[in-house]
Amino acid sequence: MADIVLYDLVGADDRRFSTHCWRVRPAIAHKGLSFETVPVPFTGIRGIRDGSYSTVPVIVDGGTWVHDSWTIAEYLENAYPDAPSLFGGAGGWALTGFVRHWWQSRMHPFAMTMILKDIFDHLLPEDREYFQTSRFKRFNRPIAEVQAGREDRIVEFRDRIEPLRRLLDNQDFLGGADPLYADYLVMGTFVWARKMSPFALVEPGDPVHDWMNRCLDLHGGMARAGAGFDW
Amino acid sequence: MADIVLYDLVGADDRRFSTHCWRVRPAIAHKGLSFETVPVPFTGIRGIRDGSYSTVPVIVDGGTWVHDSWTIAEYLENAYPDAPSLFGGAGGWALTGFVRHWWQSRMHPFAMTMILKDIFDHLLPEDREYFQTSRFKRFNRPIAEVQAGREDRIVEFRDRIEPLRRLLDNQDFLGGADPLYADYLVMGTFVWARKMSPFALVEPGDPVHDWMNRCLDLHGGMARAGAGFDW
Repeated sequence: MADIVLYDLVGADDRRFSTHCWRVRPAIAHKGLSFETVPVPFTGIRGIRDGSYSTVPVIVDGGTWVHDSWTIAEYLENAYPDAPSLFGGAGGWALTGFVRHWWQSRMHPFAMTMILKDIFDHLLPEDREYFQTSRFKRFNRPIAEVQAGREDRIVEFRDRIEPLRRLLDNQDFLGGADPLYADYLVMGTFVWARKMSPFALVEPGDPVHDWMNRCLDLHGGMARAGAGFDW
Repeated sequence: MADIVLYDLVGADDRRFSTHCWRVRPAIAHKGLSFETVPVPFTGIRGIRDGSYSTVPVIVDGGTWVHDSWTIAEYLENAYPDAPSLFGGAGGWALTGFVRHWWQSRMHPFAMTMILKDIFDHLLPEDREYFQTSRFKRFNRPIAEVQAGREDRIVEFRDRIEPLRRLLDNQDFLGGADPLYADYLVMGTFVWARKMSPFALVEPGDPVHDWMNRCLDLHGGMARAGAGFDW
């Protein structure tokens, strides 16, 4: 029996495509723990436990339920203090918060505008109506319109990622010589995008692309496995 | 006699306005060390030591000369390992590099376009020609033209700073409950701007403005002293 159960978003062809679940998977492995997943479509999330969760990831560690990727990362760090750290000390913990807010405010939502229609195309059939309706509400436009013009917007995305490019020109991971949760946090978006879209957010020759490949190799190459796109 | 000598950029009315020197000053104090400054105008930098330095800060610690704010921060951390850490551990050290590249690639140069003419107006007379010529080369336009339109660009600046705003809504400093070098690194730009320009990069009510004021109070309020603007 695995140490941890992870409720994991699933799309067509068993694609496990949740950004936030892909932050948690390598974090669990980083702590030396094993896990098994329970695949859940968007429309199945309310069926977890007592129906109180509206998003995944949700994990069960022994009898303990924990929800939300950041809460889970902090939970793992506190619950397994003797396993390799996800933050690399108090300063790293605080500054991972900065990386998190940078990525969540300026990068991930921007990336989403470029692959939203591709995500839709690779959902399970039972999720399509929910996705279309909820994303229309969020973006105030049909999903195909949101995605349109991505060939232009990608230039701005690659400008915004410049600080990461400069950093990764000098060190292998955000965490330094080895990955920390800050790496998993950013990596989640790239795994999500590669599962669902052929549109390359970064290209070969970019230090961020090299870093992405290093991340894909981590923990037995877990993020390379299964259906998806290779860019 | 002070522990450390700091060669420090000087403008009109003894304004000490170098961003990079303002990263180093609180870092020295953070380590519990004292320092005295040698004021140097731009056109005096080649007069330091053997003339090999083209920028400040330069410090002398005993017989050791160290140049460049990041190199100095790492030097201080290594030379004084038992004093309070500037990075908060290995993870914090690595991720401070990320904050540094974010700030240097996306934020500080952008801020500079908004106060360039104001900087010129508060230089020592002997620096004016050098500044005008060198900045014309860098920006390919006269400095007044670079600064023009800042009332529009400030909106984008405040958008870009959003990750910091979100972080500082939940913690007092980038470093967590207490400041680390990541705070000094970002703060340097605000001290520089307040020394030279009445143009507010952030406004009251913004969590970043509150944080700026907490930083200004640090180490005896050193960054509040002297000529400048209060915003």
